[in-house]
Amino acid sequence: MTIKEFLEGDKFALMAGVELMEVGNGYAKARMEIRPQHLNGGGVCQGGAIFTLADLAFAAATNSHAQLTLTITSSINFFQAESQGYLYAEAKEVLNRKHLSNCEVVITNEKGEKVATFNGTGYRKEARLPFSPIEDKPTF
Amino acid sequence: MTIKEFLEGDKFALMAGVELMEVGNGYAKARMEIRPQHLNGGGVCQGGAIFTLADLAFAAATNSHAQLTLTITSSINFFQAESQGYLYAEAKEVLNRKHLSNCEVVITNEKGEKVATFNGTGYRKEARLPFSPIEDKPTF
Amino acid sequence: MTIKEFLEGDKFALMAGVELMEVGNGYAKARMEIRPQHLNGGGVCQGGAIFTLADLAFAAATNSHAQLTLTITSSINFFQAESQGYLYAEAKEVLNRKHLSNCEVVITNEKGEKVATFNGTGYRKEARLPFSPIEDKPTF
Amino acid sequence: MTIKEFLEGDKFALMAGVELMEVGNGYAKARMEIRPQHLNGGGVCQGGAIFTLADLAFAAATNSHAQLTLTITSSINFFQAESQGYLYAEAKEVLNRKHLSNCEVVITNEKGEKVATFNGTGYRKEARLPFSPIEDKPTF
Repeated sequence: MTIKEFLEGDKFALMAGVELMEVGNGYAKARMEIRPQHLNGGGVCQGGAIFTLADLAFAAATNSHAQLTLTITSSINFFQAESQGYLYAEAKEVLNRKHLSNCEVVITNEKGEKVATFNGTGYRKEARLPFSPIEDKPTF
Repeated sequence: MTIKEFLEGDKFALMAGVELMEVGNGYAKARMEIRPQHLNGGGVCQGGAIFTLADLAFAAATNSHAQLTLTITSSINFFQAESQGYLYAEAKEVLNRKHLSNCEVVITNEKGEKVATFNGTGYRKEARLPFSPIEDKPTF
Repeated sequence: MTIKEFLEGDKFALMAGVELMEVGNGYAKARMEIRPQHLNGGGVCQGGAIFTLADLAFAAATNSHAQLTLTITSSINFFQAESQGYLYAEAKEVLNRKHLSNCEVVITNEKGEKVATFNGTGYRKEARLPFSPIEDKPTF
Repeated sequence: MTIKEFLEGDKFALMAGVELMEVGNGYAKARMEIRPQHLNGGGVCQGGAIFTLADLAFAAATNSHAQLTLTITSSINFFQAESQGYLYAEAKEVLNRKHLSNCEVVITNEKGEKVATFNGTGYRKEARLPFSPIEDKPTF
């Protein structure tokens, strides 16, 4: 099993249309194309959809060491509304400790403008995940 | 149009299976039944799904005054994993100013245990929404 | 040694004039009288002073079990400016796990109005603190 | 009056020993030397002191446009404990709107290691501040 296969078991992210593009050591990139099903009553991409995109990138980056990491808290800032095109989430782990992880995720639109920023804290369990830890080089 | 009809225009919350139960003045309650589509790779309800549930309750409570309120930042703490049954989100506005709103949302399971807590800050625009402001008493 | 003595070793909180009023099991109350030294350039109590007050209440509540708990992340919402009188911080632990703690702190003025809310996540180390765990009843 | 003089009116930051090093357009850098008065009961720099350092850098960056900006919410992540030497806070504004600002602050030690990260959201009032807006180039 690869980390990509493991994370594709996330049915909610799948339903939201989130695609994992790249996973490295403490790093990940994902994207989501805004479709009618992502829009809120105001006609713009719903906050929960953007959170789901960011959260999958966070999960990929923080689980890249193959040690199960659970989100304990996260915060998200919304900067501008988007109603079409792709959104990208790039996650970079800032803290990588035995039991704790902190990871920043920047969400951009197709023009590279910041749409939102996300910061998450993860708690590492003892459990090893069923794939090899990702080495330095981002993969696939 | 009622606030319920306005918020049911949120297609992402709809796809996630979030149902609005009650809206009052600066107050709202929503629920979501955990289904296979909500589960992540670990078999528990995905964080983005819980965020979406909380965010709809937040949107209902903060827009209950019929003045358009956009989320600018929110944070969520996850306390325990759930894999079945209903989750409930109860939102209470703590701050209600002309341009700013702050609202706390508590997410519980069927046993009443806290699953997560959410805090959101909203920015009020001048735009009036196409329904009457909700009076003190929670409705429907 | 008592938990009060332990926490009075916090020289920064002491310099800020924070006084611990009460500690219970997962509970604490502290206060701080706003003085000229707490004011910012705008003549109101500085955010860092309010954070310090909230943080001491958080530290007392989360360390009340006599197991060393370190803050890993916290967020604070500011609702209204204050320039005189006492501020009170009441901390209630929401999550109390072997390795994790979450605690909400409400900061009020003398009229009981909410001035700020604070939410903190703590990580519990194995180390026992040199005092007895606080039983259910708030003390001193 | 300069922005430096304006911010030096912050008596709490002054008491905490925070020094403003540089202010640019949406940018600021500050430092604080850890002294015995900053230490908590565990002998390390107290979270409130680090918050105060970060908050002054935030205030300088977000008020650099000479339009009064108040903090409405902020979050801080603590990565490692420090007990001596200088701490540095570097603030960069990410969002600069008419009424809203978002600013990231990175706190490092003398070795350049990340000690904490801070993210704050500010609300801009109509009031102009009594100094000229800072142009692109960081100053003093």
